[in-house]
Amino acid sequence: MRSLLPLSLLLPLLASCAGAPPREATPRPEWSIVIHGGAGTIPRDAPAGEADAHRRSLAAALELGSEILARGGTSLDAVEAVVRLLEDDPLFNAGKGAVFHAEGGHELDASIMDGEDLSCGAVAAVRTVRHPITLARRVMEETAHVLLVGDGAEKFADTQEVERVENSWFDTEHRREQWLERKREAEGASASDPAHRFGTVGAVALDRGGHLAAATSTGGLTNKRFGRVGDSPIIGAGTYADDRTCAVSSTGTGEEFIRFGVARSISARMAYGGEDLETAARAVVEGDLAPDDGGIIAVDAQGRGVWVFTTAGMYRAAADSHGRREIRIWGEEE
Amino acid sequence: MRSLLPLSLLLPLLASCAGAPPREATPRPEWSIVIHGGAGTIPRDAPAGEADAHRRSLAAALELGSEILARGGTSLDAVEAVVRLLEDDPLFNAGKGAVFHAEGGHELDASIMDGEDLSCGAVAAVRTVRHPITLARRVMEETAHVLLVGDGAEKFADTQEVERVENSWFDTEHRREQWLERKREAEGASASDPAHRFGTVGAVALDRGGHLAAATSTGGLTNKRFGRVGDSPIIGAGTYADDRTCAVSSTGTGEEFIRFGVARSISARMAYGGEDLETAARAVVEGDLAPDDGGIIAVDAQGRGVWVFTTAGMYRAAADSHGRREIRIWGEEE
Repeated sequence: MRSLLPLSLLLPLLASCAGAPPREATPRPEWSIVIHGGAGTIPRDAPAGEADAHRRSLAAALELGSEILARGGTSLDAVEAVVRLLEDDPLFNAGKGAVFHAEGGHELDASIMDGEDLSCGAVAAVRTVRHPITLARRVMEETAHVLLVGDGAEKFADTQEVERVENSWFDTEHRREQWLERKREAEGASASDPAHRFGTVGAVALDRGGHLAAATSTGGLTNKRFGRVGDSPIIGAGTYADDRTCAVSSTGTGEEFIRFGVARSISARMAYGGEDLETAARAVVEGDLAPDDGGIIAVDAQGRGVWVFTTAGMYRAAADSHGRREIRIWGEEE
Repeated sequence: MRSLLPLSLLLPLLASCAGAPPREATPRPEWSIVIHGGAGTIPRDAPAGEADAHRRSLAAALELGSEILARGGTSLDAVEAVVRLLEDDPLFNAGKGAVFHAEGGHELDASIMDGEDLSCGAVAAVRTVRHPITLARRVMEETAHVLLVGDGAEKFADTQEVERVENSWFDTEHRREQWLERKREAEGASASDPAHRFGTVGAVALDRGGHLAAATSTGGLTNKRFGRVGDSPIIGAGTYADDRTCAVSSTGTGEEFIRFGVARSISARMAYGGEDLETAARAVVEGDLAPDDGGIIAVDAQGRGVWVFTTAGMYRAAADSHGRREIRIWGEEE
């Protein structure tokens, strides 16, 4: 042997000569998860207890998802479980705590996608299913279809063992007041008012098997009319997952997210343009979308979890097997 | 002057030296249009009159669209007018002549998109609107929304001057027999049986102003249940238009077109991967999709109109200001 240096010491030196950090410095985490509870303008002067309550809810959801992934569960199971928990949480606009539509009831949308084989399922305008994300998963696994809406989705639920509730079960006083205030205000109510599009929930994850999954669930817009469907149940807009690129869940002004096919566009930029996840996500959220339209969470096949949003804040949290654990609300938090 | 050759003679020589045909040889047509009436397995032994009738219908629609574009109308007006005509045509599975769903009625889906500003509108599961494509355009132009479904879309129609009909107005004997046969057959009825997914209609066009537009309308699947929604009303799957790339309308197994975000993927390959329209369309239809899933029509910003399909046939036609005029049914026709 002529070399006096063992190879393991030499390699990082060579890599750093090439101007790049040694690959060994950032091995792929075994699992990774990012979750969100909506993006918008969260008043800084809101009672401190409110932010704390949101942080506690995000922490519980992050814990649940991390636990599933840590013990080798699938990313699909993790994102479904996290979204079910957030659907039951009255703080968020999904399931219990969903906003009121113009007639004073609730219509819920959800979608889920498995990055391994691109299988996906979605439901829109469901009224009596406690966990719309689970019904979306049943559409994916039990039917030849991707999207079921309204009465038809309810009839499909009748054929499945999913928990049913009265529509009024989704009521919360907070959302009723928000709705009544909204009704009083106007007519002039615009779909893009950021203060009123809060609380869509979502999760994306990479599991130990190397598979990605994404899930999104929402109650839509306060005082919405006309069977309006946003991006949450639209595969490619609100939700996308492909093991070759990334998993994405969106939240914001749904119409803009449909127009630009936000979730799928991020994947397409990576697949066709060779961009990395963060570059692709920024190009879409900060480039295609307008300021204040909303944001996304995403994780790529290397377990890099990111969030990008142009609103003042986004309820969000991330964890991975390297010990990352972040829970955030506003933009400038570190 | 030292040169003995006028510049206009020299330029093509220079271009051909560079190995590329001179641009002047194929100037952009002033307008271009492609239309379709669905893709699937059309029996060669069907009564000759049947193919002739379809050709006559395609010719009339092509004529109407060409006329609008030739006199300087917008691509948006052209694709809407063509789709309205095909919706009224009992031969196709859209509007009058739509297939029957499992309960014996009709639910119609449509979407439209303007490539100039990416504005778009869509409706799903409408029951009493004679021209769903026009309701989709109203969603685009008169609301802040993109997609309205079911009862809500019907209520929105109440606020608009659009022609209404009884649901039974869409009945045709042909489709009723198809439905009854389907019901007898099974249960085992699969969403992907190509013989039964015929007749979705669509149009894409480039106008003299350089703007692209796309429109798609369908009655969905024979004997469909559970409020199933396919790709036709999903912006990015069934329909997409962006002046910077192309306009696309899809037809086939809707679930697969949603999964791969077909219309938007073609645009994304052009935008992010630098592919030309035909390369991008083939990559998606022949690469991402499975054989027999269906096909697309598309036109790019240079007025190149293409179709790509993997079924035995596709009712289709194309015309442009250079005098192109093609009407085709099967795959091998020239």
